[in-house]
Amino acid sequence: MCAAISASRSPDVVVVGAGLIGLVTAWRAARRGLAVTVVAETAEGAASPVAAGMLTPATEAAFGEEALMRFGVLSRDRYPAFVAELEDDSGLPAGYRPHGTLQVAFDADDLARLAHLSELRARLGLRTERLTGRECRRLEPMLAPAVRGGYLAPDDHSVDPRRLLSALYAAAERRGAVGVRDRVREVVLDGDRVRGVRLASGGELAAGQVVLAAGVGTPAIGGLPPGVVPPLRPVKGQLLRLRTTPGEPPLVERTVRGLVRGSPVYLVPRDDGEIVLGATQEEQGHDTRLTAGGLWEVLRDAHELVPGVSELEVAETCVGLRPGSPDNEPLLGPTAVPGLHLAAGHFRHGVLFTPATGDAMAEALTTGALPGYARRFAATRALEAVGGTGTGGDPDQWT
Amino acid sequence: MCAAISASRSPDVVVVGAGLIGLVTAWRAARRGLAVTVVAETAEGAASPVAAGMLTPATEAAFGEEALMRFGVLSRDRYPAFVAELEDDSGLPAGYRPHGTLQVAFDADDLARLAHLSELRARLGLRTERLTGRECRRLEPMLAPAVRGGYLAPDDHSVDPRRLLSALYAAAERRGAVGVRDRVREVVLDGDRVRGVRLASGGELAAGQVVLAAGVGTPAIGGLPPGVVPPLRPVKGQLLRLRTTPGEPPLVERTVRGLVRGSPVYLVPRDDGEIVLGATQEEQGHDTRLTAGGLWEVLRDAHELVPGVSELEVAETCVGLRPGSPDNEPLLGPTAVPGLHLAAGHFRHGVLFTPATGDAMAEALTTGALPGYARRFAATRALEAVGGTGTGGDPDQWT
Repeated sequence: MCAAISASRSPDVVVVGAGLIGLVTAWRAARRGLAVTVVAETAEGAASPVAAGMLTPATEAAFGEEALMRFGVLSRDRYPAFVAELEDDSGLPAGYRPHGTLQVAFDADDLARLAHLSELRARLGLRTERLTGRECRRLEPMLAPAVRGGYLAPDDHSVDPRRLLSALYAAAERRGAVGVRDRVREVVLDGDRVRGVRLASGGELAAGQVVLAAGVGTPAIGGLPPGVVPPLRPVKGQLLRLRTTPGEPPLVERTVRGLVRGSPVYLVPRDDGEIVLGATQEEQGHDTRLTAGGLWEVLRDAHELVPGVSELEVAETCVGLRPGSPDNEPLLGPTAVPGLHLAAGHFRHGVLFTPATGDAMAEALTTGALPGYARRFAATRALEAVGGTGTGGDPDQWT
Repeated sequence: MCAAISASRSPDVVVVGAGLIGLVTAWRAARRGLAVTVVAETAEGAASPVAAGMLTPATEAAFGEEALMRFGVLSRDRYPAFVAELEDDSGLPAGYRPHGTLQVAFDADDLARLAHLSELRARLGLRTERLTGRECRRLEPMLAPAVRGGYLAPDDHSVDPRRLLSALYAAAERRGAVGVRDRVREVVLDGDRVRGVRLASGGELAAGQVVLAAGVGTPAIGGLPPGVVPPLRPVKGQLLRLRTTPGEPPLVERTVRGLVRGSPVYLVPRDDGEIVLGATQEEQGHDTRLTAGGLWEVLRDAHELVPGVSELEVAETCVGLRPGSPDNEPLLGPTAVPGLHLAAGHFRHGVLFTPATGDAMAEALTTGALPGYARRFAATRALEAVGGTGTGGDPDQWT
C-alpha cells in the first residue's frame, strides 16, 4: 500500500506507526469504512518484528497484573476468528499455531514458584494441567532430564509476528488503507484540536483523527502539549532465532517456557523449523546494542532446558525495545486533545493484545469512546509510575 | 594488485590461495625477485580473516607438540623484524601488539594442569612467570575474583590477522606480485612436471612452479596425482568479536587465555577496542554453521573469566575452518611432482607460523629445498594420521 501521498482526499484517520498495533488499528478502522493513512519509518529497536509471538496469558499470569491478564485472555480468545478474517482479507498466512504451551521448572525452587502461580491462574479461570517431569518429557522428549515438572496450558498458543505484520499490511491495503514511508515530525493542532501531522520530508497530512502507535518512539513525536503522552520506558529484549537442519524433526512441538534457577526463558517453534529463543528484559534507556551478556543469558537457560539447542544453527540475533508505560498497562483511545488517540505502551504483550486493541481502537475512532473491556486502559487515566524491573530476567512475573 | 591476467609474461610462481600463508609466500618470493601471481576466490570458512591472531607458543605448549612449538618460537621471534619490513613495504600497519599474554586458571584443577605444562615450557626454554590470583588481577583488574592464579608469558604477543592480510597483500603488490580473483579448477601437468593451473573462468596460467596454499580447500584442487596432497581435516572454530563502548577503557590490556573447568578460552584485545573471544574446536567436516552451542560455550567461559564481557556489544560472530594435516603439522615445500609445492595444514598455528613459513617457502622456491628449520615439515614426509580431538575444547592442548 506504500504510495505517494494522494492529494485527492484527506484521510479520516492518520495512524503513526506500522508495527502490529498501528497496522491492526488501520485494518480494523478501514473495515469500518474509515479512510486511513499509515505513516511509518523503519525504526531501530522496533518491537513487532523481533517479538517471539507468544499468546500465553495463562503461563504469564503474574500477581498484580490481573487486569492485564483478563485483557490478554479476551484478546487470546479472539485470535481464531481474528486470524480467519485476517487471512481472508490479506490472502496471507498469519503463522498461528494453536498447539498449547508447556511451562516447566528446572529445579525444586522453580517448581515451587510455578505452583504458587497456579493459584493465581485458578482464580483467573485459566486452564493449566500439572505435570510431572516424566510427563513433561513425554510431551517434549528433548527436555533435559533435570526438568522437575511443569504445567501444560492447552489454550496458550503462538503466532509469527513477522507473518502477522505482512498479513495486517496486506489486509489494511485491501480494505483501502494507504501507507506512507516517512517520519512524522509533529502533530499539527488547530486551536485545541488535531488537524493532522507534519512529515519529515516536508508537507502536512491533514486528518480529523490521529492515532499515535509508534512504540517507544511515541513520546518523541513533536507538537504535543505536555502530559498528553506519558513517558514510555524502553525495555530491551535480546533474542536468537535458530534454524532446524532441513529434514530434521523440530526440537520442540509447542512453545516451551521455563524457569531455570529463577531465570525465565522460552523456546517458540514455527512451522518452518525456526525456533525463537528469548529473551532478556533490560531497562537502560534507548539502547539497541546486542551484548555478549544478553546472548549468554538466553543461551545458558535455553541450553539447560533443552540441551539439543546447541546443535542448531543461529540464523539471526535481534534486539527489540518493548514500550513500558508508567503503570505497565497499555494506553488506548482518546487523549485530552480532541481527535488525538494513543495506541501505545503494550510492553511485552503487544502480540497478545493485537486483536483486542484493534477492535477497541476501531470502536474509539468510530464512536469516540473505548468499549467497556478496554476502558481501564484509557489514555487519559491517572498514571502512577511503577518501579522498573531492573536488568535481566523478569522477577515480577514469577513471584 | 587485482588485475586481468597479463599475457605479456608468464609468472615464475603461481600461488593458489590468498590467506596469510599464500600471501606471505607471494610477498617473500617476490622480494627474492620471483615473478608471482596469486590466484584466489573468497572461500567460505577461510581461517585467516577469522583467526584471533595469538602469537603464543609459550601458553600453547602441549606435550607431544614440541617440534611445532620450536617452529612457533622461531617464527614468533621473527615477528618484530618481519612486521617492520612488512609495514615498510606495504605502508600499512600490521596490528602487532607486543604486550605479552596472561594465562589464568579458574579453579584448583585448572591451576594444576597449567602447573604441569610449566615443566614442558621450562624444557623448551619458554619464559613464563608464575603468578598468584591476586597478582593476575593486579595485571588485569577485570579478571573474576575466582581466578586462582596463572602464568605471565612476556614474549607471547598478538597481531591482527585482518590488518596482516591487508598489509601482506599491499606489500606483495608493491614487490610486483599480481593478484587474480578466480578459482583454480586444476593443476596442469606436462608429463610429470607442473606446467601451471587451469582457472574456473577458463584459460590457463602457465608457471614453472605452483604453490598450493588454499587451507582446507587444498585437497579439492583437481589434476593432482593421488597421494601428493594429504587429506586436511576442517577443524571448525566459532568466535565472537566484541566492541568496547567508545570512551571506555579496554576490558583487558593483553591477551588473556584461560582454562575454565578444563575448557580453554581466550580474549584477544586490539588497539581499536575490539576484543576477540574464542574459540570452539570441532571436527565435523566442512561445516561452517554458526551454532547456539558454539556461541554458548565461548560466552560461558569468557564470562566466567572476565564477567565484564557481558556489557560489551557483539560486533560480529564468525566461523573458520582450520586445516589439520594427518599429523597436525604443516606441509611445506616441494612435493613428489616437480615444480609443485605445498604450504598448507597450519591448523591452529597459521598466524604464528606466517613469518617462518614465508621465509621457508621463498627459500624452497628459489633453491628447490626447504631450510633446515622447516625440513621436518616437508610435504613429502611419511604421514601417519593422528586422532581427531573431538568436538569442543582442546583437551590435548592441556594435558
